[in-house]
Amino acid sequence: MLSTFHSILTAITPIDTSLAKPGQARLDDLTKPKGSLGLLEDLALQTYMIQGGTLPTADPARCYTVAGDHGVVAEGVSLFPQEVTRQMVLNFVSGGAAINVLTNTAGAEIFVVDAGSCGEGYDEHPKLIQNKIAPGTANMAQGPAMTQDQCLQALLLGVRLADQAKTDGVNTLLTGDMGIGNTTPSTALYCAFLGLEPEAMTGPGTGLDSKGVAGKAQVIAKALTVNGDAVNSGDPLNILAALGGLEIATLAGLILGGAKNHQLVLVDGFISTAAYLAAWKLCPTVADYCVLSHASAEQGHKKAVAAMGLRPLLDLSMRLGEGTGAAMALMVVRAACDIMGKMATFSQAGVSVAESN
Amino acid sequence: MLSTFHSILTAITPIDTSLAKPGQARLDDLTKPKGSLGLLEDLALQTYMIQGGTLPTADPARCYTVAGDHGVVAEGVSLFPQEVTRQMVLNFVSGGAAINVLTNTAGAEIFVVDAGSCGEGYDEHPKLIQNKIAPGTANMAQGPAMTQDQCLQALLLGVRLADQAKTDGVNTLLTGDMGIGNTTPSTALYCAFLGLEPEAMTGPGTGLDSKGVAGKAQVIAKALTVNGDAVNSGDPLNILAALGGLEIATLAGLILGGAKNHQLVLVDGFISTAAYLAAWKLCPTVADYCVLSHASAEQGHKKAVAAMGLRPLLDLSMRLGEGTGAAMALMVVRAACDIMGKMATFSQAGVSVAESN
Repeated sequence: MLSTFHSILTAITPIDTSLAKPGQARLDDLTKPKGSLGLLEDLALQTYMIQGGTLPTADPARCYTVAGDHGVVAEGVSLFPQEVTRQMVLNFVSGGAAINVLTNTAGAEIFVVDAGSCGEGYDEHPKLIQNKIAPGTANMAQGPAMTQDQCLQALLLGVRLADQAKTDGVNTLLTGDMGIGNTTPSTALYCAFLGLEPEAMTGPGTGLDSKGVAGKAQVIAKALTVNGDAVNSGDPLNILAALGGLEIATLAGLILGGAKNHQLVLVDGFISTAAYLAAWKLCPTVADYCVLSHASAEQGHKKAVAAMGLRPLLDLSMRLGEGTGAAMALMVVRAACDIMGKMATFSQAGVSVAESN
Repeated sequence: MLSTFHSILTAITPIDTSLAKPGQARLDDLTKPKGSLGLLEDLALQTYMIQGGTLPTADPARCYTVAGDHGVVAEGVSLFPQEVTRQMVLNFVSGGAAINVLTNTAGAEIFVVDAGSCGEGYDEHPKLIQNKIAPGTANMAQGPAMTQDQCLQALLLGVRLADQAKTDGVNTLLTGDMGIGNTTPSTALYCAFLGLEPEAMTGPGTGLDSKGVAGKAQVIAKALTVNGDAVNSGDPLNILAALGGLEIATLAGLILGGAKNHQLVLVDGFISTAAYLAAWKLCPTVADYCVLSHASAEQGHKKAVAAMGLRPLLDLSMRLGEGTGAAMALMVVRAACDIMGKMATFSQAGVSVAESN
């Protein structure tokens, strides 16, 4: 399984940056002052290069909302009971959650993936992919959250999801998560990968008060100590296995698979960015294919993103996960692609160009 | 005409803030942690109150892109020749401009309005509203840009546009502008209304170099001095007439009319925010009905917005105008309204609620 995974990493190639020049020339010939559409032009150019120099399109777009449970909730790190992960999977399947509404508004399809929620399997449903690697992770405050084998299974599941989307003609992937307690492993991953401190990075998740946040930070500090060998190894796979989650590792695999397949990947918020960070440490080239959709309102996200040298596209003070921020970003990316493909050029429209300064 | 205008101002009533409580209760009963959708929840609540407490809808939405020319271009404040205003009106009508693409992507209809472009009338077109008050303003560096009568004509044109949209069932208005040189009067309005300095507020517009920007700031300072009586009067109508533009005054009227009609108004960027500022000074209640769509990349916009105590919804480094930022914001508002109206509640979905801290 490890060699299969390594062969995927080596199959990820950079975008063809020689396309930047013709892409920029196209953008500069459209009837607007040069650069005046800002990030829309940047997104259009990135998508143009990802798609090999054809006029870019965001569609079809697909969101995978991946569920997993976390042994660390035994430490009291979340206000919501663990069964909510399962209840929300059923809510996703029946179409009532925020991500259902927003993917519908934004024009993406959605699949729900069970990578590791607690309890038994679910009734079959065409929109539910059942691939339960384990019924939740182990408690990372007492040892590794996952075995390396479980972590690899989750990564390869994510790659298969990207591959299935590629087979179905999907150009844009949206990452989504569901897992009660999963801001805790995500924060631990930020700390381990970026050398940040739990106290500064820990936030309220779904609504802890300040005492709850302090306790959660202590749990994260303990997990970093207990898993010190993995953290100190600097090996991304070891760190992800020790401190991650089944949904987080699956999303890291989805990001790697999307990059392998030359798909644009819209990375959702706090949890998905932790998955991106793991994928980026495993293969820095994924950066060519990814857009951080939005700045999460969850404490620590802005610090982590700054430490990674990135700027999220939107800042709507959202902190829900599920892929909701990625769905919002999809609308912006579609607008960007439409600009590049559908505007008139100066000569077509008979509009005078600017004098030089 | 002045008394007609005053009767419109007095017809603007605040939103019913007693609706905030039931609206918030609805949002808090949806299957997500309280407040976790951030600004989407704020937008949904604002629209709910504007629409009188029914589940809100952003649609139908209509953009008015209003054109006007500016006598001050004689001072060399823009890189593009003045005939581009007229050429762009024709580009809007034939559907090739950025605002055509983005209103199409965002699901809004668009009307182009000639309030004051140079030259003769245009061929008739169902999407073009011809109401040329004058073929451009006078040079504000030498005297008032408009007479009070011209300014009132433009304001009342804007109100009529809002009224026509109301008659047509439009719930959301998008403000758009076209006018070569119009960052210059907009900057002058920010300085006059907010007590800001031309040197700090003046930016490159469509692409001036630093020498060009310095010259433009001097022209604005001269206009503020030449029109010192109007500026010092503190009277918003006098200031708008002296330093505004025909498209800017029309957009101020559109904003006032939208507020009168209980329509949501998505205010575009640098130019439209200057129109909003004038409307707000004329009637502070317009704030209840307006959303600043995006932070313009044009130097000075962030300073002006901060001085007004507002936060724009998006920051995509755009600086094109035409209504393009408002079109981007429309997609966010539609998502917000869909969240409030289409998500399942906790009891509907059988999802457990959070423990209290």
